[in-house]
Amino acid sequence: MADSGVGPVETQFFTSDKSFNFSSGGQLPTITLAYETYGKLNEARDNAILVCHALSGHQHAAGTRIDNTQDIGWWDTMIGPARPLDTDKFFVVSTNNLGGCHGSTGPSSINSATNKRFGPDFPKVTIEDWVEAQVLLADHLRIDSFAAVVGGSIGGMQALSWAVRYPLRVRCAVIIAGASRLTTQNIAFNEIARQSIMRDPDFSDGNYYDNRKPPSSGLAVARMLGHVTYLSDDHMQDKFGRERREDTGIFQIESYLRHQGDKFSQSFDANTYLLMTRALDAFDPASAYDGDLVKALSPANAEFLIISFKSDWRFPPARSRELVKALIAARKKANYAELNARGGHDAFLLDDPTYHRIVKGFLQRNA
Amino acid sequence: MADSGVGPVETQFFTSDKSFNFSSGGQLPTITLAYETYGKLNEARDNAILVCHALSGHQHAAGTRIDNTQDIGWWDTMIGPARPLDTDKFFVVSTNNLGGCHGSTGPSSINSATNKRFGPDFPKVTIEDWVEAQVLLADHLRIDSFAAVVGGSIGGMQALSWAVRYPLRVRCAVIIAGASRLTTQNIAFNEIARQSIMRDPDFSDGNYYDNRKPPSSGLAVARMLGHVTYLSDDHMQDKFGRERREDTGIFQIESYLRHQGDKFSQSFDANTYLLMTRALDAFDPASAYDGDLVKALSPANAEFLIISFKSDWRFPPARSRELVKALIAARKKANYAELNARGGHDAFLLDDPTYHRIVKGFLQRNA
Repeated sequence: MADSGVGPVETQFFTSDKSFNFSSGGQLPTITLAYETYGKLNEARDNAILVCHALSGHQHAAGTRIDNTQDIGWWDTMIGPARPLDTDKFFVVSTNNLGGCHGSTGPSSINSATNKRFGPDFPKVTIEDWVEAQVLLADHLRIDSFAAVVGGSIGGMQALSWAVRYPLRVRCAVIIAGASRLTTQNIAFNEIARQSIMRDPDFSDGNYYDNRKPPSSGLAVARMLGHVTYLSDDHMQDKFGRERREDTGIFQIESYLRHQGDKFSQSFDANTYLLMTRALDAFDPASAYDGDLVKALSPANAEFLIISFKSDWRFPPARSRELVKALIAARKKANYAELNARGGHDAFLLDDPTYHRIVKGFLQRNA
Repeated sequence: MADSGVGPVETQFFTSDKSFNFSSGGQLPTITLAYETYGKLNEARDNAILVCHALSGHQHAAGTRIDNTQDIGWWDTMIGPARPLDTDKFFVVSTNNLGGCHGSTGPSSINSATNKRFGPDFPKVTIEDWVEAQVLLADHLRIDSFAAVVGGSIGGMQALSWAVRYPLRVRCAVIIAGASRLTTQNIAFNEIARQSIMRDPDFSDGNYYDNRKPPSSGLAVARMLGHVTYLSDDHMQDKFGRERREDTGIFQIESYLRHQGDKFSQSFDANTYLLMTRALDAFDPASAYDGDLVKALSPANAEFLIISFKSDWRFPPARSRELVKALIAARKKANYAELNARGGHDAFLLDDPTYHRIVKGFLQRNA
């Protein structure tokens, strides 16, 4: 059990006092964001770091839950006193994205207009919508500018979006295992996950909340697939090899995947999974500039740190290097580290000393 | 439309006149193998080449079907007059593997003991069982020794098994995009496919033949996943990029995958898919020698040709090189080609001139 640096934490809720306009054209009269904070906002209100979560993440990034001391945040090794996102110095804010299923307004929330859950009627969300929702929270917390916006995977894309959309509100952007847009293969894997969910008869076109059961089979398979693509071949080989279970004779990796799929499907909403993967697929800031990423990046003002992992084949270093090259061509301040960690895409969650030293040093110098 | 070299072909059926013992301990009183042949067996009966198919393949490897001139064999570009498996010189035999669903005895066949389909009661099959079944066919055709046994992917593993089990009956072994055993990641992808099938409520524990419908949703998702892992990222990028369909607005790759999944699920049996992937996972000739592949290969007598494709990430060149190194350590005649074709694992099916020249040259010289 990791030593939780920030101790027990309670999720807080922010509800907007005005309507929210989605980039897709949808509108909600109000939205709620679930969030946690770690550390203290200083008097100048300029030491805040915003953490953006990945596909299956949520606001509980660090510490334990006040009602469950076993439930340690997903980035606890990164956030805490003397850790890379050093809560002795910084005030860290972590939200559940809009459309999520951990307390922020999403498909499983009650639609006040109908008194039923939104289900498939929830507006299409984009990464830009997530940023806009976080802007409302920042305003509420009276944070004019973030010392840094930090994220891995889709959270890194969100940090990129922040830097481009709000150049005066982001002093540093840390984009880990990210990309400026998905490849065809990335979209393909997301689509297989969606098909697995949508073809589950329990999905009922997204109106499953009153059913006997949700589409947990489809969601479990979707998660197994995601999980395998987030790990490197080497990492899986080291951990499981071709070992079989003594009791059932099946391969250890089979048993592990079934467990991961089932666990996830009990705690995550299928409609949110569809929504989040579609947001991920659609993200492409260069598309508004005829595919010219350099132009798309030109508004940014932040000091960038881009990190990739050589064993990550879902968002490989080549994608990060494309982004770095475009940042340099756009005359931005870009720092880049390509790390050897064997963990695959999920290496961004792991406690690798080199990785942590780089993030910590960058933030101490620049944020 | 490819020019079909061998013209219309009719599938033939061979039924054994004695019982078949599976390596798992199961037994059937008789088995049937569906097969096709192309070219003519010479008087010496020594010009036969055996083709082994991949996971979703079947006996129709070349030519058109006698009742469907649009249905061209899956390896038609490889087999025919003047093609790499030159039917002017060789007599090519292609079977549907035991456990298959294209005419060979498999889970969807009628079990004469119960007068019902085997379903989940079909014995567990191994690659070694496939070889033993083909030995019966070879005996029936009075082919003492094959000029070559040739296969891609799992078919390459089958060719390897032939070479080791029947050293005096295989003069050449051509193993394309193969491996001596699966990695953890390979097994993981197979398991996700199986979970997708088995968690489909229409699967009914494998007893779905009398249901309203088979587990076509689960099988479609399994196929989508397989398909994506058989293609390279670059190949998909070239073919689909991030293009969207004009009518529905979805990405072209999404539309393509749904179509591929649906098409496959209408023509393939889910129980066969489970059986075949398990045979693939279990294959590991070195396991009988304490993991020593060199020892496992020592009985072989064939001249080997190993081919891998740099863009193949499911059975990458590193796996083929392991095999080549072990063959060399075992003092076997090993030829190796690592090709640049961008098609990924499925490059073994494609009409690449360098690839074809190498196979043709090897067979002309050695087979």
